[in-house]
Amino acid sequence: MRIGMVGLGKMGGNMAERLRRGGHEVVGYDRDPSISDVGTLKELVDRLEAPRAVWVMVPAGEPTRATVAELGELLDRDDVIIDGGNSHYVDDQRHAGELGAKGVGFVDVGVSGGVWGLENGYALMAGGDAAHIQRLMPVFETLKPEGPDGFVHAGAVGAGHFAKMVHNGIEYGMMQAFAEGWELLEAADVVTDVAGAFKSWRHGTVIRSWLLDLLVRALEDDPELTQLRGYAQDSGEGRWTVQAAVDHAVPLPVITAALYARFASRQEDSPAMKMVAALRQQFGGHAVTS
Amino acid sequence: MRIGMVGLGKMGGNMAERLRRGGHEVVGYDRDPSISDVGTLKELVDRLEAPRAVWVMVPAGEPTRATVAELGELLDRDDVIIDGGNSHYVDDQRHAGELGAKGVGFVDVGVSGGVWGLENGYALMAGGDAAHIQRLMPVFETLKPEGPDGFVHAGAVGAGHFAKMVHNGIEYGMMQAFAEGWELLEAADVVTDVAGAFKSWRHGTVIRSWLLDLLVRALEDDPELTQLRGYAQDSGEGRWTVQAAVDHAVPLPVITAALYARFASRQEDSPAMKMVAALRQQFGGHAVTS
Amino acid sequence: MRIGMVGLGKMGGNMAERLRRGGHEVVGYDRDPSISDVGTLKELVDRLEAPRAVWVMVPAGEPTRATVAELGELLDRDDVIIDGGNSHYVDDQRHAGELGAKGVGFVDVGVSGGVWGLENGYALMAGGDAAHIQRLMPVFETLKPEGPDGFVHAGAVGAGHFAKMVHNGIEYGMMQAFAEGWELLEAADVVTDVAGAFKSWRHGTVIRSWLLDLLVRALEDDPELTQLRGYAQDSGEGRWTVQAAVDHAVPLPVITAALYARFASRQEDSPAMKMVAALRQQFGGHAVTS
Amino acid sequence: MRIGMVGLGKMGGNMAERLRRGGHEVVGYDRDPSISDVGTLKELVDRLEAPRAVWVMVPAGEPTRATVAELGELLDRDDVIIDGGNSHYVDDQRHAGELGAKGVGFVDVGVSGGVWGLENGYALMAGGDAAHIQRLMPVFETLKPEGPDGFVHAGAVGAGHFAKMVHNGIEYGMMQAFAEGWELLEAADVVTDVAGAFKSWRHGTVIRSWLLDLLVRALEDDPELTQLRGYAQDSGEGRWTVQAAVDHAVPLPVITAALYARFASRQEDSPAMKMVAALRQQFGGHAVTS
Repeated sequence: MRIGMVGLGKMGGNMAERLRRGGHEVVGYDRDPSISDVGTLKELVDRLEAPRAVWVMVPAGEPTRATVAELGELLDRDDVIIDGGNSHYVDDQRHAGELGAKGVGFVDVGVSGGVWGLENGYALMAGGDAAHIQRLMPVFETLKPEGPDGFVHAGAVGAGHFAKMVHNGIEYGMMQAFAEGWELLEAADVVTDVAGAFKSWRHGTVIRSWLLDLLVRALEDDPELTQLRGYAQDSGEGRWTVQAAVDHAVPLPVITAALYARFASRQEDSPAMKMVAALRQQFGGHAVTS
Repeated sequence: MRIGMVGLGKMGGNMAERLRRGGHEVVGYDRDPSISDVGTLKELVDRLEAPRAVWVMVPAGEPTRATVAELGELLDRDDVIIDGGNSHYVDDQRHAGELGAKGVGFVDVGVSGGVWGLENGYALMAGGDAAHIQRLMPVFETLKPEGPDGFVHAGAVGAGHFAKMVHNGIEYGMMQAFAEGWELLEAADVVTDVAGAFKSWRHGTVIRSWLLDLLVRALEDDPELTQLRGYAQDSGEGRWTVQAAVDHAVPLPVITAALYARFASRQEDSPAMKMVAALRQQFGGHAVTS
Repeated sequence: MRIGMVGLGKMGGNMAERLRRGGHEVVGYDRDPSISDVGTLKELVDRLEAPRAVWVMVPAGEPTRATVAELGELLDRDDVIIDGGNSHYVDDQRHAGELGAKGVGFVDVGVSGGVWGLENGYALMAGGDAAHIQRLMPVFETLKPEGPDGFVHAGAVGAGHFAKMVHNGIEYGMMQAFAEGWELLEAADVVTDVAGAFKSWRHGTVIRSWLLDLLVRALEDDPELTQLRGYAQDSGEGRWTVQAAVDHAVPLPVITAALYARFASRQEDSPAMKMVAALRQQFGGHAVTS
Repeated sequence: MRIGMVGLGKMGGNMAERLRRGGHEVVGYDRDPSISDVGTLKELVDRLEAPRAVWVMVPAGEPTRATVAELGELLDRDDVIIDGGNSHYVDDQRHAGELGAKGVGFVDVGVSGGVWGLENGYALMAGGDAAHIQRLMPVFETLKPEGPDGFVHAGAVGAGHFAKMVHNGIEYGMMQAFAEGWELLEAADVVTDVAGAFKSWRHGTVIRSWLLDLLVRALEDDPELTQLRGYAQDSGEGRWTVQAAVDHAVPLPVITAALYARFASRQEDSPAMKMVAALRQQFGGHAVTS
């Protein structure tokens, strides 16, 4: 089918390419005219046929909100916007409400895959009306990995990004579990072939996983990780996962600990621990009256 | 090669069977005479040829200690005992010291695999002298899964069980991460096809793993897990992982949180939360002086 | 000075009483006519003299929002509304904006004290313009405990409730620390006079505190807390503290752990631990292919 | 009464002084001859009258073990050794067993107080036989703070140090709760008078405590704690608390989080977060096959 793609960066560009390889006709728009098929969003909309489908693949937050708003002005009843970025599910629900007032549909899709998605496919989690999902299935079928899995219609609008958000929360916890295990093995000096232990776990163990494969690859590149600093960004989904959990009174000790470890990794010095140090100094240094 | 196997339960029995299928000659001993090849450990030792190898596959703690001690009396210089149970690495180091005094070798092996190991092989993590490991490689080759991985000589005595211990700590963290994600999805009521979301993640995502496969299978059996109580044992390795981390001043927030979630799952009522409730009652109910 | 008090429940009623004892004239309004001085908010406003001050002491959320909105309609330029409830600081900032458009002032005050505040005074944390705070100081002076402390002008609008929110977050962490210590002492069976240990800590130790005093009192009433269930509500401030921390990328491991312990205390059975149990069952029970 | 004091450092020296001021006769021994009353432990023992009491106030671990062993050789039936250092309760139980074989008594005392103990008294938690405790009560009465509290006979040998250990675990949690609250207030920039907020909390709030007093004092000295690094040692008791909890399957999320925050504060760079960074790099940077 014919589809518009807004945002032709690393993700959007590769997804457009995978769609074209799969026989779809993609009209691409990007702020960078050297990679854009059209000069404006209006031109992009004009190049599509009703009912139109426009996939938005721009950074979450203000860029996505602005793009959705502008497209909402340009599109007509029965057209549909797909937000494939990393938006907060609450934004989806607001977008769907605003667009619905003029009959434009909205579908949110959480996308997993990264740079290898072009070849291997993108895992997709979609939220929206069944009729919209049905219409877009040819696109989803092409984007997703081969085989029975890799796509879910998770629920109404917002469910796609909510599912992706929780996926990332789980990812944070798993990564931290592996990272803690590695730190302990390195610290304890009992296991002398640490990289070999991780490599051996790739077969026959409970923890075999793609993350373990990546970890083995990372240690092959740099066995002591001497080239790296212990500094990790968080992407928004981890924070939203914790905030959603707090809203629903769900305890998430592991996922939250993983998020906090990232926060702490970005501090030059921990303010809290300065206070702990200050309190310890007060115990010991001054003649304090009770 | 010929090898003795002490303990023919679910693990030891299947390992003996896999060894026999692989062409080894196994003399098995079990307290249950109906499945034992010999009547006593002495008889087992007599049936082997020097230098002997005896694989101990009995419960960790006192049963393993007693078996190792008894075998130590029966065996001669250059014989070797392999402890394939879930022993604490500190026990290994003590066993090796005691046996070493009379020239008997000791190798510790962490074994992962469970009931499917008979068919698919057991992941093995070994600790001990290179010469002992070398002599036992035919046995390890048969027990381990096919392919390049599934076995590591992790270091000196203790390293095998230490590696397995950390493996299990990582496993605790990963399981808890998945479990928390599932709880949040169920609680939030945004994603309506929760089982479908997990299923979809099996391809193309960062969290694809054998644990995810098991999780999908569990939800296929019982989509809301109504047949289960939220009650989880811990096996010793999780505790030892945390205690080793504390000994080495390594922070393990995720693995520890996963362990504590298991502890809490086994409490009828939380004593700590009784105290929190008591303190809240004190705020509100009495006329307390400052 | 003369002041209106809206909400004459346990907190508002006692605060009105303390103000009257301190020489202020309080016009009280409550939905319950049997304790209300006036029949309507309009009547309350009419009984005050410009520039008026109305202290709102009703439940946070919708009741406070509705009361502030109604008062906003009734009040004039230079009047001021004080929200002394447990509102979210974000609500304060919105209220101040809405009221400011018509010249009505807004001050938020976090109040600590509970039932003993009538006699001992209420700790007050205020947010708002310096001019408003200055005008209200006679009221604050009467409400607060004697002595140099017990009141702070913490910052602009929202700062009062933000400070109270963090106070409560700290309180959660402290309570949980005591509760965990008590649980361990009870579980370990090394200390046989647990209540005596806590009592002894009231003098000369680092942890002496009002919470410790309450804890000792609780154990005097019920040495094993047999009359209580391990069930603890959370009041909103704990959740907002964690959410504010996540917004600011501040790691709060202790305060969050205390909040999650409360969440968990209210679950009949832990869904997450059902999933952990399900995964453990999958390892052990089925012949699972790799 | 007459008592021996071994170790005349900051703690032991002040305790000897407080005992002398209270009318006791103290024979002090220290490795530093310039402050020692006697040249050897033998001489110290000779200067006491049977049944003798010798208080050991030297660093925990090897120094305490060596001192207790040497005193055990020198003392006679019915003499008693008091270990007032920060020993692990397991060591106490071993010491009592060894000394008991020759009829020498052993009492363990957890001591809280620091440099202000000389003036204000030391909180004491004692473990041991009732007869020994009874005999030593004059000493305890002098050392402890005035008033009804500050001393507990917590149980049999080991109970004193166990109680002190848990006290310190609670202290870790409380300190971290305050520290986290301070960090959040500083980070969020809503409360502009952070030090004033803490100061105001000293009266009328739930969190009023000696630690809060110390915190206020610390901020008076250095309002932004610019003179300090976020680096905190841990003293052993925190670690033992967590390890005891794990032994007894008691979840201690708050106390453990506080301990881990100290561990992390001492790392130049977090190895675990290097691994998280490495995994994130693997996602994004390489063309990874599934």
